[in-house]
Amino acid sequence: MSSEHGFCDLGFAKIDTDRPRRKGFSEVIYCPGKDRSHLKKISGIFLKNKQDLLLTRLEKPVFIYLKKFYPKLKYNPIAKIGFLSQRPKDKKGLVVVISAGTSDLPVAEEAAITLEVMGNNVTRLYDVGVAGIHRLAHHLDLIKKAKVIIIIAGMEGALASIVSGLVKIPIIAVPTSCGYGASFGGLAALLTMLNSCSPGITVVNIDNGFGAGYFANLINK
Amino acid sequence: MSSEHGFCDLGFAKIDTDRPRRKGFSEVIYCPGKDRSHLKKISGIFLKNKQDLLLTRLEKPVFIYLKKFYPKLKYNPIAKIGFLSQRPKDKKGLVVVISAGTSDLPVAEEAAITLEVMGNNVTRLYDVGVAGIHRLAHHLDLIKKAKVIIIIAGMEGALASIVSGLVKIPIIAVPTSCGYGASFGGLAALLTMLNSCSPGITVVNIDNGFGAGYFANLINK
Amino acid sequence: MSSEHGFCDLGFAKIDTDRPRRKGFSEVIYCPGKDRSHLKKISGIFLKNKQDLLLTRLEKPVFIYLKKFYPKLKYNPIAKIGFLSQRPKDKKGLVVVISAGTSDLPVAEEAAITLEVMGNNVTRLYDVGVAGIHRLAHHLDLIKKAKVIIIIAGMEGALASIVSGLVKIPIIAVPTSCGYGASFGGLAALLTMLNSCSPGITVVNIDNGFGAGYFANLINK
Amino acid sequence: MSSEHGFCDLGFAKIDTDRPRRKGFSEVIYCPGKDRSHLKKISGIFLKNKQDLLLTRLEKPVFIYLKKFYPKLKYNPIAKIGFLSQRPKDKKGLVVVISAGTSDLPVAEEAAITLEVMGNNVTRLYDVGVAGIHRLAHHLDLIKKAKVIIIIAGMEGALASIVSGLVKIPIIAVPTSCGYGASFGGLAALLTMLNSCSPGITVVNIDNGFGAGYFANLINK
Amino acid sequence: MSSEHGFCDLGFAKIDTDRPRRKGFSEVIYCPGKDRSHLKKISGIFLKNKQDLLLTRLEKPVFIYLKKFYPKLKYNPIAKIGFLSQRPKDKKGLVVVISAGTSDLPVAEEAAITLEVMGNNVTRLYDVGVAGIHRLAHHLDLIKKAKVIIIIAGMEGALASIVSGLVKIPIIAVPTSCGYGASFGGLAALLTMLNSCSPGITVVNIDNGFGAGYFANLINK
Amino acid sequence: MSSEHGFCDLGFAKIDTDRPRRKGFSEVIYCPGKDRSHLKKISGIFLKNKQDLLLTRLEKPVFIYLKKFYPKLKYNPIAKIGFLSQRPKDKKGLVVVISAGTSDLPVAEEAAITLEVMGNNVTRLYDVGVAGIHRLAHHLDLIKKAKVIIIIAGMEGALASIVSGLVKIPIIAVPTSCGYGASFGGLAALLTMLNSCSPGITVVNIDNGFGAGYFANLINK
Amino acid sequence: MSSEHGFCDLGFAKIDTDRPRRKGFSEVIYCPGKDRSHLKKISGIFLKNKQDLLLTRLEKPVFIYLKKFYPKLKYNPIAKIGFLSQRPKDKKGLVVVISAGTSDLPVAEEAAITLEVMGNNVTRLYDVGVAGIHRLAHHLDLIKKAKVIIIIAGMEGALASIVSGLVKIPIIAVPTSCGYGASFGGLAALLTMLNSCSPGITVVNIDNGFGAGYFANLINK
Amino acid sequence: MSSEHGFCDLGFAKIDTDRPRRKGFSEVIYCPGKDRSHLKKISGIFLKNKQDLLLTRLEKPVFIYLKKFYPKLKYNPIAKIGFLSQRPKDKKGLVVVISAGTSDLPVAEEAAITLEVMGNNVTRLYDVGVAGIHRLAHHLDLIKKAKVIIIIAGMEGALASIVSGLVKIPIIAVPTSCGYGASFGGLAALLTMLNSCSPGITVVNIDNGFGAGYFANLINK
Repeated sequence: MSSEHGFCDLGFAKIDTDRPRRKGFSEVIYCPGKDRSHLKKISGIFLKNKQDLLLTRLEKPVFIYLKKFYPKLKYNPIAKIGFLSQRPKDKKGLVVVISAGTSDLPVAEEAAITLEVMGNNVTRLYDVGVAGIHRLAHHLDLIKKAKVIIIIAGMEGALASIVSGLVKIPIIAVPTSCGYGASFGGLAALLTMLNSCSPGITVVNIDNGFGAGYFANLINK
Repeated sequence: MSSEHGFCDLGFAKIDTDRPRRKGFSEVIYCPGKDRSHLKKISGIFLKNKQDLLLTRLEKPVFIYLKKFYPKLKYNPIAKIGFLSQRPKDKKGLVVVISAGTSDLPVAEEAAITLEVMGNNVTRLYDVGVAGIHRLAHHLDLIKKAKVIIIIAGMEGALASIVSGLVKIPIIAVPTSCGYGASFGGLAALLTMLNSCSPGITVVNIDNGFGAGYFANLINK
Repeated sequence: MSSEHGFCDLGFAKIDTDRPRRKGFSEVIYCPGKDRSHLKKISGIFLKNKQDLLLTRLEKPVFIYLKKFYPKLKYNPIAKIGFLSQRPKDKKGLVVVISAGTSDLPVAEEAAITLEVMGNNVTRLYDVGVAGIHRLAHHLDLIKKAKVIIIIAGMEGALASIVSGLVKIPIIAVPTSCGYGASFGGLAALLTMLNSCSPGITVVNIDNGFGAGYFANLINK
Repeated sequence: MSSEHGFCDLGFAKIDTDRPRRKGFSEVIYCPGKDRSHLKKISGIFLKNKQDLLLTRLEKPVFIYLKKFYPKLKYNPIAKIGFLSQRPKDKKGLVVVISAGTSDLPVAEEAAITLEVMGNNVTRLYDVGVAGIHRLAHHLDLIKKAKVIIIIAGMEGALASIVSGLVKIPIIAVPTSCGYGASFGGLAALLTMLNSCSPGITVVNIDNGFGAGYFANLINK
Repeated sequence: MSSEHGFCDLGFAKIDTDRPRRKGFSEVIYCPGKDRSHLKKISGIFLKNKQDLLLTRLEKPVFIYLKKFYPKLKYNPIAKIGFLSQRPKDKKGLVVVISAGTSDLPVAEEAAITLEVMGNNVTRLYDVGVAGIHRLAHHLDLIKKAKVIIIIAGMEGALASIVSGLVKIPIIAVPTSCGYGASFGGLAALLTMLNSCSPGITVVNIDNGFGAGYFANLINK
Repeated sequence: MSSEHGFCDLGFAKIDTDRPRRKGFSEVIYCPGKDRSHLKKISGIFLKNKQDLLLTRLEKPVFIYLKKFYPKLKYNPIAKIGFLSQRPKDKKGLVVVISAGTSDLPVAEEAAITLEVMGNNVTRLYDVGVAGIHRLAHHLDLIKKAKVIIIIAGMEGALASIVSGLVKIPIIAVPTSCGYGASFGGLAALLTMLNSCSPGITVVNIDNGFGAGYFANLINK
Repeated sequence: MSSEHGFCDLGFAKIDTDRPRRKGFSEVIYCPGKDRSHLKKISGIFLKNKQDLLLTRLEKPVFIYLKKFYPKLKYNPIAKIGFLSQRPKDKKGLVVVISAGTSDLPVAEEAAITLEVMGNNVTRLYDVGVAGIHRLAHHLDLIKKAKVIIIIAGMEGALASIVSGLVKIPIIAVPTSCGYGASFGGLAALLTMLNSCSPGITVVNIDNGFGAGYFANLINK
Repeated sequence: MSSEHGFCDLGFAKIDTDRPRRKGFSEVIYCPGKDRSHLKKISGIFLKNKQDLLLTRLEKPVFIYLKKFYPKLKYNPIAKIGFLSQRPKDKKGLVVVISAGTSDLPVAEEAAITLEVMGNNVTRLYDVGVAGIHRLAHHLDLIKKAKVIIIIAGMEGALASIVSGLVKIPIIAVPTSCGYGASFGGLAALLTMLNSCSPGITVVNIDNGFGAGYFANLINK
C-alpha cells in the first residue's frame, strides 16, 4: 500500500495520492455506491498520507460508523459532507453563495462547506428568488463585493440570468432538482442556465454544489 | 425580523411581506424539501404580519405538527393544502373546475381550494372525460356560466380541446401525471394541451392545480 | 434471377416473391433512399412475376421515370403512391378514413389509396377535428357503418379518443407530423393516441398512412 | 343516483351506464389513484345496473376489501384483474396471446383475462422470444389458426416483426416495461414495434394488456 | 355548399361557419400544408358568409396569389398574417405585448396583430430582456395599466417570471424557438415558463403568438 | 417435459435446451420479474439436462431459497450471479476488465464472473478513471497483454476513449448508471461511448456487464 | 512539419503519425466540417509519411478536387470513402456484412470498404430483413462461416437479435437512420440493438459503418 | 434616441448603453433572426456612443453590407464575428484555447476572437483530442501557464475530463455539435462535460464559443 507511483492500490480502489500536487487539493470521495468498509479503508489511507479528507453525499449513519474510527472527522448534515482538514489554510477572497429558494439549501450548503474546507471566505444569501426580486436588489452591494458568485436554483432557474445582468463577476450556476412535473428532475433549470441570454455564466451538473464550490475555489485564489 | 424592506429575513428564508401589495395575495409556501421547524417559523411570520397563509403540498403529519402551534390552521387532505385566512373576502365570479377522471381529484381539489381561499365562487364538475362525452354535454349550460374554466386531465388529456371547441370562455388546462407507460409522468397530457387545435387554451405545469387556481383568480376578479 | 427459394436475388435486393402466399399481398416497396435504377429493376421483377406493384413515398419525378418503362403504372400525387394491379379484386367491407384537418390529407390519402388498391370499399371523411365537433356528430350514422375506422390527426391528435367513445368499431389511429413547436414532429399526437382513456384504439407510426391501410385491410376482409 | 341521462352521478365520479349500448361492453374501471371506498361505491352501481364489472390494476388487498361486499367478485392475481360477469356470453373466434419472455406474463395475462371475460376463445403461447426462434417455428400452425394475434414483448420487442412476416393475421403489439438501462421503461420496445418493417402490426401503450385484449375482442367478433 | 348544419362541406375541408356563435370569432385558418387553391376556396366561403378572415403562417407569395382574387385582403409580413375584417369592432381594454429580444419579433407581432384584428387595444414593448433589466423597470407603470400581459421570449425565457413577480395581472407566456444548441428549438424556454416559481403565468405552444393573442382577447373583453 | 424439439415446455416458460449447440453456451436466466417457484423449476430442467446454469441479477434471498434445492449452486453477491458449471472448461486467452471507479464494481464483477464461468482468464483493473490517469498509465503493459478489453464506466464514461487511443485490442464499453443529475441513469455515459472519436470500441446496454462478458468470451476463444 | 514527437503539427491539425504503431492502422480522416484545402494538406502529410489514407464521409466534389493532387486516390461513391493504400496487406479471415434493407446500403458499404482497405475478406449479404426471413434462412450456412458478423439495419432494427439467436459468432450491430416518424433518426434501431434479448451483440453509433468495420478488423485478425 | 435611462430606444430594440458600466463590456449583438437594416441601425448607435461593437454569428454577406456603412468594421470568417474596438485595451493574462478536432475550429475561433477583442492574451492549441493523447501530453507545460483554459470538443467530448485531471486551472468546457447519429446535435458532448468525474470544469451551451470567451475574460482579468 505504498504510494510510490502516485497512488495507493487497495485492489477495489486506487487512491490518487498525487492529487494535491497536480490539482492543489486531495482526491475527494463521492460516497454513493461505496460500501462502508471500503470507505473506512479509503479514509485511513488519506489520514496516513496527511491528505485533507472530503467525503461528499455521505449519509449520517455512515458518518457515525466512520467517526468511531476517525474521531476527528466532522460532518455537516445539510450538505451531507464529512471532512477532516490536515493542513492549515488561510481564508482568502470572497465567494457569495446565493440560493433562489429554501428548498435549495442542501445544494447551497454543499457548495459553501466545500469552499470553506478549501480555505475560502464565504457569504451565504438564501431565498432571494425572482418571485420577490426586491430581496435580491436589497443585497446588491454585498453581492458586488464577491470575487466569484455561485447561484443555486431549481424550478425555472431564472435567478442566474438576473444576477448576471447586474454584475461583472463570474457566475457559476447550479441547477437543482427542486421542482415537479415538467422540471424533469432539474432538466428545466439546467436548460435555462445553459441558454442564458446574459453572458458571464457557466453551469455545472444538476445538484452539483460540490463542483461549483471546487471551481469557485480555483478562481477565488 | 422586521420587514421594513418588504421582507423578513430568517437567514434560511426571506419572507416576502410585500407580496399582497404587488400581487394581491400573500406569498404562498410550497412545502416539499422544507424542514418542519422552518415551516413553523415561516408560518409564524405570516400570522404576525396579518397575511393569509396558504401551504401547498403539505403532508398530513406536518399539518398536525403545525396545528399544535397555530390551532386555527385548516387542512384539505385531498388537495394537501393548509390555509388560514386573516382577511375577509367576498365571493366573486364563477370558476368551473372540470376533471376528466376520478384519479385527477387531488389536482382538481388543489385548484378548487386555492380558488376558494382566494375568494372565488367555484363549481366542481368531475369525471366527465371523453370516453363518455354525453356526461359533459349534459352539463354544457352549467359550464357556459363560468367566467373561467379549469380543465384537469391526465392520460391523453383530450378534454381541454373538446370543451374549448364549445365555449368562448378562457380555459386553463392542467395536465396530470395520472397514467402509465408512454404517459411519461404527464408529458403526454402536457403536449396534448400545448398543441390543441382549438384556440382559447393555456397550460400550466403537470399537476399544478395551485397555479391554475391562482391564474383563474386573476381573471375571475 | 429465378425465385425458386421464394425470392429473386438482385444482389442489392432480394425480392420476396413468396409474400402473396404468406401475407396475402405482394411485397410493398418503400422508395426513399432507393436509387431510381434500382426501383426500375425491382419493379420489373414484380411485373414479370405477376405480382401487384405498390410503391410508397414515390416522388413524382421518379414516377415519371418509371412510367416510361412501365406505361400502365398509375400514380396518386397527394398520397405519393405508384401502383399497378395485376390481379382483379372484389371490393369488400367498408373502411371509413377520417382526418382531423385538411393538412393531414397526404397521410389520409396514403391510407385510402392503399386500401383501394388492396380491394376495399373506402369512404373519406375529412376535416372533422374537435375544434368544431358538430361536423363529426353530423356524420355519425355514416361512421357507424364502417367495419374498421382509420383516424388521421396531427397537433394534439384528440380526435381518435372522441370517436372511440361513440362506437364499437376497431379504430386505427395515425398521428401526423402536422403541427409545430411542442408537437415535436408528431410526437405529441403519437403520445395522445397511445394514452387514450377510451379503449378500442391501436396506433401506427407517425405519418404511416400505408401501415394503417394495410392493417385495416386485414380486418376488413 | 338514477342513470336516466346515460350516467350515474356520484359526485366524485359519473358512471357511464350507457357504455354497453355504445361500446358493446360496460365501462372498465382503472383502479390506480382511486380510493377503496370510491371503488366500492362504483362497483355497487355496476352490480345494481346489471353491468359486467371489470377492474384493472387492482391490488390484492383492495380486492379482498371489495370481496367482502361483493362475494361473487373474482380475481386473477397475475393479471391483477377483478371481474364479475352478469350476462352470459358465447365463446367466439380465437385470439392467440404470445409472450416473448416469462417476465412479460402479467401483461400477457391482463390481455388474456380481458378477452376471456369478454367472451373470446384464447390460446396462450408464452416464452417464444427471438433468442430461440425454433420455439416459435414449432407452433406456427397453431398461430395461423388465430383470427387475431396479440404479441407481448419487452427489451427490444423484436418478436412482433418476426411473426408479422409469417402470417396474414392482424397483430396487436404490446411493449412491456421489462428490461433495464436503455430500455427506458419500455420505450425501446414501443419504438421497435411502431417502426416495424413488416406491415400488419398496430401498437398499444406500454404494459397495456387490457387495451390489446379490448381491441382484439372488437376484431374477433 | 350551404352551411345549414353549421359548416360548409368542400370535401377536402368542412368550414365551421358556426364558430362566431360558439366561440365569438370566425374559424382561423392555419396555412402550412394547405394547397393555395384550397386556401382560395376556403377564403371564398368565409367572405361569402360575412365572416372575418384570419390566415396565420401565410407566406408572402401565397398572399399575393390570394390578393388577386380578394383585393381587400391585408397582410402583415412580419407576423405572416393575412386578414380581412367584415364586421366593425370597438377597441377595448389593453393588452401589453412584451418581447425579450428583437429576434422574437415575428412571434410578438403574430400576437399583436391577432389582438388588433379581434378588436383589442395593444401596446408593444420590445427588447426588454433580463440581460438589461432597467429597460423593463423603466416601463413598469405602462405595464401595470394592462388588463392582460403577453410575454414573448426565447433562449432561457426568464422574462415571464420577472414580470410576474411585479404585477397582479394575468400573464400569458410564449416561448420562442429563438436560440441554439441546448435550447432544443424552444424547449428550454417552454420548460422555464412551465416551471416558473412566480404564480400568475400560463403558457402556450412554442412560437404560438396567435394562441396567446386569442386567449388574451378572451380575457381582455 | 422432454426436449425433443430443442426446448422443454413448462407452460409459463419454454427452456431452450438447444442453446449449447447453436450458441456454445446454455441459455442464461435473467431473474428480475420471475417468481421464485418458476426459477426453481427452470433451474431443475437445466440440471437434469446437464446444462451449465447461469442466473443473472439474482437477489440473495432467492439464491438462498434455490440453494436448498440445488446445494451445489454458487453465488457472487457483488455480481449478483448464481452459477453451477456442469461441464469442465479450460481457461483460455485473457480478458482485462477495467473499471473507472469503485462504484462501478457490481457491473465489473458481473462481466468478470460471466467470463470466468464461461472459461476465460480474467484480470481485473479497478478504479483507474481519467481523474488520475497515471493509475492507468502505470498498468499499460498489463493491458496490452489482453486479447479483449472490457471498460466499465459511469458518470461521463470517458475512459473507453482514452484506452482505445493507446491499444490495438478490441474494446467493449459498458456504461453504468453510476452518477446523478444529468447522467440520466447512465444515458450520459452511453452517449459518450457511442460517440467515441477513437475507433475500436463497441457498446452494450447500460449496466450490462453480463452482455459484455458474453461477447468478450466469443472473441477471446 | 517533422513528426519526431509522433505527430505533424499543421497548426489547424496535428496529424497522429504514430497511429500505425499504436493502433495497427493510420489515423482515419472524418471529412465533414473540414475545409478542402485543409484536407489536401492533411492528405499530403499522410502520403509523404507512407501511411495508408482513408477518408470517410467524403463528398464526391471534394474527392474530385483531391484527385487532381493525388491521382492514385480511389473513391467508392456509395460508401463515400476515399482511400489510397501504401502498404500491401494479405486478405485474412471472413467478415459477413448483412443489411436488412436496400436503403441501408451506404452504411453497409462504408463497413465493407473499410474492411477491405484494411485487408479483410468480406462477403456482402444485403436485403435479408425480418419481413421475409426465408431470405436469411437460405444463407445461414454462408453466415456461419464468418469470423465476425456486421448487421446493418434501420427502422426497428430487429435483424441483429434474430441472427444472434442462430450463431456463436460475435455480432456488431449498426443502427441506421433509415426510417421516419418515431424512428427519430435511428434512435429506435439503436435502442432495439442495445436491448437485445439475445446475447453476443455489441453496438456502434447510428450510421457508423466505419466504426463497425474497424472493430471487426480487430477481431478478424 | 438619447440614452439617458441607460438605453436607446429604437422601437424594435432597446440598446443597453449602460452595459460597459455594469458588465465591463458593451452589449454584444447576436445576429441570427435580425434583419440587416436593424443590424445597421443598432451598429450605428454603438458607434455614436463610443461603445465597442461585437457582432456574433454574423454571416459574411451581412458583414459586407454593414462594411459599406462602417468601413472600420473587421470580420473573422471562421468565427463569424464582426468587431470594431473603440477603446484601447492592454493585453492581460493568458487563456489557452484547446480544441479536440479540426472540425471544432469555428467554435474555438469564436472563443479566441472574443477574448482578443476584449483584451486578453490567447494561445491556441488545436486538434489534440484523446484519440492521440501524446499530442496533448507534448504541450502540457504550455497549458500549465494558462490562467484559464477553454476546451472545445464535439463527439464524445472527453478531452475536458482528461485535461482537468492534470492541472489546477479553471476549465471552461464547450460542447460542439460536431458529430452525427447519437451525438444528437452536441447533446452527447454536453452531457459528458456536465458529468465529468474530475472536478474543476464548468460548461456553457453547445457551440457557445462566445460565452466561454466572455466568462474566461472575467476570470483572466
